[in-house]
Amino acid sequence: MKEIIAIIRMNKVGVTKDVLAAAGYPAATFQKVLGRGRQRGLVGEVKAIEVDKATEMVLSSSAMEFVPKRMITIIVDDKDVERVINIIMAVNRTGQVGDGKIFVLPVEDSIRIRTREKGFEALV
Amino acid sequence: MKEIIAIIRMNKVGVTKDVLAAAGYPAATFQKVLGRGRQRGLVGEVKAIEVDKATEMVLSSSAMEFVPKRMITIIVDDKDVERVINIIMAVNRTGQVGDGKIFVLPVEDSIRIRTREKGFEALV
Amino acid sequence: MKEIIAIIRMNKVGVTKDVLAAAGYPAATFQKVLGRGRQRGLVGEVKAIEVDKATEMVLSSSAMEFVPKRMITIIVDDKDVERVINIIMAVNRTGQVGDGKIFVLPVEDSIRIRTREKGFEALV
Repeated sequence: MKEIIAIIRMNKVGVTKDVLAAAGYPAATFQKVLGRGRQRGLVGEVKAIEVDKATEMVLSSSAMEFVPKRMITIIVDDKDVERVINIIMAVNRTGQVGDGKIFVLPVEDSIRIRTREKGFEALV
Repeated sequence: MKEIIAIIRMNKVGVTKDVLAAAGYPAATFQKVLGRGRQRGLVGEVKAIEVDKATEMVLSSSAMEFVPKRMITIIVDDKDVERVINIIMAVNRTGQVGDGKIFVLPVEDSIRIRTREKGFEALV
Repeated sequence: MKEIIAIIRMNKVGVTKDVLAAAGYPAATFQKVLGRGRQRGLVGEVKAIEVDKATEMVLSSSAMEFVPKRMITIIVDDKDVERVINIIMAVNRTGQVGDGKIFVLPVEDSIRIRTREKGFEALV
């Protein structure tokens, strides 16, 4: 079992959840997050950095802002990982910076609270 | 060490956190999420699906809504996983669709920022 | 690849993200969470516990409140884990209870949606 985490544009949430559901993956969790990838937010450059002269530690810098994103989390069987990634890619790839990222994490167990079903049975 | 993630009903947050704390697991994190499991939200069926005729890719479907849920995250020692799952099950199982799910993920390390304690010492 | 999750004080978010970015780790995700560690929230003690006399199950207890925290999630290459932890420790350690915790989870894959780059290439 794997946890697929996708950080996507806010305006792609609707189509992403609908296409995943139509493809047989209705179970997902959505959260509001602030994200920043390679584009370093909407501003794109460091305007000011404050450095501690004694330690040379950077104390703060400004102007790199975070962008509101949505985080989708979906737990799938190993055999479905590639397909779910492809679906997320298909509906989220605009080619513009800020399309987001997908991460795959291992999951050791899954339990449906209502029925105590475990593992794959708790997913479908 | 494991990360136990439980997606539960909003009205079960209070009793869940209290019972976990009373059982010796006070450290937990709560987040608001929108979730959907087997019940496919409150509506339960796909009313409309838009399909791209060229690719046969489903572009969107409507009417499957997400339900506000709470996500509890708790990091525990391997020996406590079963007990914490049982506690979460005991207070969240109503037998109705929508009781939620529990996931178990591996955690490689844990550090308490204040003391630099690592591993199990950072949990208790 | 690892997922580093840090639960930190709200007033440390700005400096943490800026110092991480200045050190070469601009990509991160921030979420609002309610957290509780060893300090058991701001109140610190259980005032009332309701116990089911038949099962001896604790049903609820009050007065242990959760504190608003920020959760930073950052995905890094294995070689960067120690450095990122040290940066987070350096800017978040006040020595007071409530400084927060850091968790390290395994990540199996990472994909940049825009370019389909995978693994380490999707991080930098």
